[in-house]
Amino acid sequence: MAIVTFTTDFGFSDGYVAAMKGVVLSLAPTATLVDVAHGVPPQDVTAGAVALSQAAPLFPPGTIHVAIVDPGVGSQRAALVVEAGGSLFVGPDNGVLSLAARSPRKAYRIEAPAFRREPVSPTFHGRDIFAPAAGRLASGVAAALAGPATDTMVELATPTLRRIEDHIEGTVFHVDRFGNLITSISDEAMRSLDAADTDIELEGEVGRFHPLLARTFGDVEPNQLVAYVGSGGQLEIAVRDGSAAVFTGASRGSRVRLRSRT
Amino acid sequence: MAIVTFTTDFGFSDGYVAAMKGVVLSLAPTATLVDVAHGVPPQDVTAGAVALSQAAPLFPPGTIHVAIVDPGVGSQRAALVVEAGGSLFVGPDNGVLSLAARSPRKAYRIEAPAFRREPVSPTFHGRDIFAPAAGRLASGVAAALAGPATDTMVELATPTLRRIEDHIEGTVFHVDRFGNLITSISDEAMRSLDAADTDIELEGEVGRFHPLLARTFGDVEPNQLVAYVGSGGQLEIAVRDGSAAVFTGASRGSRVRLRSRT
Amino acid sequence: MAIVTFTTDFGFSDGYVAAMKGVVLSLAPTATLVDVAHGVPPQDVTAGAVALSQAAPLFPPGTIHVAIVDPGVGSQRAALVVEAGGSLFVGPDNGVLSLAARSPRKAYRIEAPAFRREPVSPTFHGRDIFAPAAGRLASGVAAALAGPATDTMVELATPTLRRIEDHIEGTVFHVDRFGNLITSISDEAMRSLDAADTDIELEGEVGRFHPLLARTFGDVEPNQLVAYVGSGGQLEIAVRDGSAAVFTGASRGSRVRLRSRT
Repeated sequence: MAIVTFTTDFGFSDGYVAAMKGVVLSLAPTATLVDVAHGVPPQDVTAGAVALSQAAPLFPPGTIHVAIVDPGVGSQRAALVVEAGGSLFVGPDNGVLSLAARSPRKAYRIEAPAFRREPVSPTFHGRDIFAPAAGRLASGVAAALAGPATDTMVELATPTLRRIEDHIEGTVFHVDRFGNLITSISDEAMRSLDAADTDIELEGEVGRFHPLLARTFGDVEPNQLVAYVGSGGQLEIAVRDGSAAVFTGASRGSRVRLRSRT
Repeated sequence: MAIVTFTTDFGFSDGYVAAMKGVVLSLAPTATLVDVAHGVPPQDVTAGAVALSQAAPLFPPGTIHVAIVDPGVGSQRAALVVEAGGSLFVGPDNGVLSLAARSPRKAYRIEAPAFRREPVSPTFHGRDIFAPAAGRLASGVAAALAGPATDTMVELATPTLRRIEDHIEGTVFHVDRFGNLITSISDEAMRSLDAADTDIELEGEVGRFHPLLARTFGDVEPNQLVAYVGSGGQLEIAVRDGSAAVFTGASRGSRVRLRSRT
Repeated sequence: MAIVTFTTDFGFSDGYVAAMKGVVLSLAPTATLVDVAHGVPPQDVTAGAVALSQAAPLFPPGTIHVAIVDPGVGSQRAALVVEAGGSLFVGPDNGVLSLAARSPRKAYRIEAPAFRREPVSPTFHGRDIFAPAAGRLASGVAAALAGPATDTMVELATPTLRRIEDHIEGTVFHVDRFGNLITSISDEAMRSLDAADTDIELEGEVGRFHPLLARTFGDVEPNQLVAYVGSGGQLEIAVRDGSAAVFTGASRGSRVRLRSRT
C-alpha cells in the first residue's frame, strides 16, 4: 500500500489540494494520503522545501512525496520525478524538492502521457501533471517511465555557513510556527566548539542578541532566549514559552555568529 | 473501499471535524477520509460550494462528499443526500451542494433513524445527521433509504453572466488563497470572442483595471495583471507573483466586462 | 486496522505533524490517521485538551489518540500512555489528556526502548517518543509494555462551577472557531432550573450581557445573543450569524451566572 504525501502553498479554503488527492485516488485507490503542510506562504519555495525536508526522512522507504510551491507554473520549468534515499519525490524543478531529495539521486522529466491528465491546465500542474504522476507511481509504475532522465536539477541556494578563523557564521533559514529560528549552522559544524566557551550572536532587526547555548529550552527560564541543536540537527534559537522571531525581530537571512570567548 | 470527503467552515482549532470522522469510521471502518477545505469563512455557503465544486469532479465514481456550511442548523432547512454524476453528496439544503451536485440529480431528505445519531444536537447536525448519513452510505447502504425523495433543492443564485450586444458582463464569484479572482465568465462564453481584440475591464474598489488576456500568468511580467481561462474553466484574473485581490480591491461581486476593441 | 488521531499546536506550515505520521506509518503501515486539530494556539494546553475531548468520544473503541501541546518538552514531565473508556491516549503528562481520558483510567510512563526512537531529541518528543509509542500501540503492542504504571496524572484545573444559594456560577472555558463561548456549566447543573424563569448574565470585557436561553441559535434573530446547551453538553453562548466573543469581549475565564428571576 503506497503512501503519498502532499506539501503545498494551496491553503485551506479552496479545493485545490483535494482535487489532487482525487486524481491520485482515481489511479491508486488504496493509497494512504498524508498532508505535510499546506500553509506554506504563497510561492515561498524555500519554506516548502524546508517543511518537506523536516518530514520526508521519517517516512517508510517507497513513500511518494509531492511538493508544489510553483510560482513558475505554466512556464518552461520542468516537472520532475526524483528517486533519492529509497523514496520518490514529485514536483516542479525549482528547488522545492532539493532539500529533501538529497544526492545521490536520479531525476526524470514528467513527459509520458500516462503521467499527465489531458488537457493540462497551464495554471494547475498540481492537478494535471504532479498528481497523475504520483498516482501512477503509487500504483506501481516505475519512475523511469515518467520521461527522459535529466542530470541537473535546480538546487536551493545553500544557506550560508562560513568558517572564518575564529568564528562560524551562518544565517537563519527558517522560522517555524512557534517563532523558533532554525539556522544554517549544523550539529557537525558545532562539534569543533566548546559549548561552555562559545558566544552566540544573533543579529535581529531590533538589536544583537546573545542566546545561552543549552540542551533544550527547558534549560532556561521562561521568556529567556536560548540556542540548542534542534530536532533537525541544526542550531536553533528560541524563547522559552515565547517567540524568538517576535523577541528579536530576526527572520530568514538574519546573521548568526559563533565565536570562542577566549 | 469508500472515499468520504469533508468540506466545512469548522476551522482547525476545534475537534468538530474529527468528531464527524469518528462517527463515519464507527460505521465504515475502512473508509478513506479526505479533507477538501475547513478554512471556508464562517457561514459563507458560497465559498464552501465553490471549494467542493473545485474538488469533487476529480474523485472516483461512488465518492461521498460531505459539505457543511450551515448557518441554518437547527432550523427547518432539510438535510439531504443527493446522487449526481455517479457520486453522492451529503449536506444541508442551503445551496452548499448545488454547484458540485449538478443536474440531473436525485435528492433524498435524511430522515431514517439509521441515518441519524440520537439524540440529535440542534447545533451540530454535522456530527449527528450528516456524518451518520455519510457513514451509512460508505458502508454500502443505498441513498434512497435515507428518506423521502424531494424534487426541489436550494440552488445558489447563479453568478451573473449577461451577453449585451457588444459585450459580456459577469462578476467575480470567488477569491482564492492566492488572491486570484475567479469570475462567472465561462470558457464557452469566451469562445465567441477574438482574444487579440478583446478588452477586459474589472471594476475593483480602487479603480478600473484592464488585465491582459493570456494563456497563463507566466505570460506576463511579475506584478502585472493578467486574465486567463483557469483550471475550473472560468475566466480568472491574477497578478503574477502577487494578489489580484489586494492589487485591485476586487472581491466577490465585483463586475467584469469583456468587449471587442473594434 | 488501528485508528490514530493527532491533536497538536504544530500549525500548518512546518513538517512536524507529518514527521510524526511518518514514524507511526513506519511501525503500523495500515493505520488510519485522522487529524483532530493542529491550530491549537501555541502551548495552550487547555485548548488542546478541549479539542481532543470534543472529538475522542465519537471514535470507535481501540482508537489511539495522540495529543501534544507541550511547553515542558525536554523537562522532567512524564510521557504517558493512558487507557480509558476503551481507547488509548498518548501525550505529555501536563493535563492535555485529562479532559478526554476520563476516570477510571490506567496510566503508564513511556520508558521502554521499543516505545521510543533513539536518539530522543530534547525538543521534539512528538517525533521521538509519542509517535513511536502510538505506532507500537497501533501495531498491537499492549499499553502496559510502555513502562511502569503510574497512579497520578496531571489534571487540568476543573473549570469553576459553583452553586451558591440562588444561583449557579461558572466560567467560559473555551472559545470556538465561530466565536461561540463554551462554559463550564453542564446540562446536568441546569436541570434544576426552569428555563423560562432563568436569567443568564455574562461578564464580557465590554459589559454585562443577558443572552436569551433557547434550544439553538436558530431560535433567535440574526445578530442576537443566545444561550443553549451545546453539542458537548455544556451551556454555550453564541450570536446567531456572528461571533459572541467579538460581540461581548468575553474570553476564557469570563464569568457566567444563572439565576432565577423570581
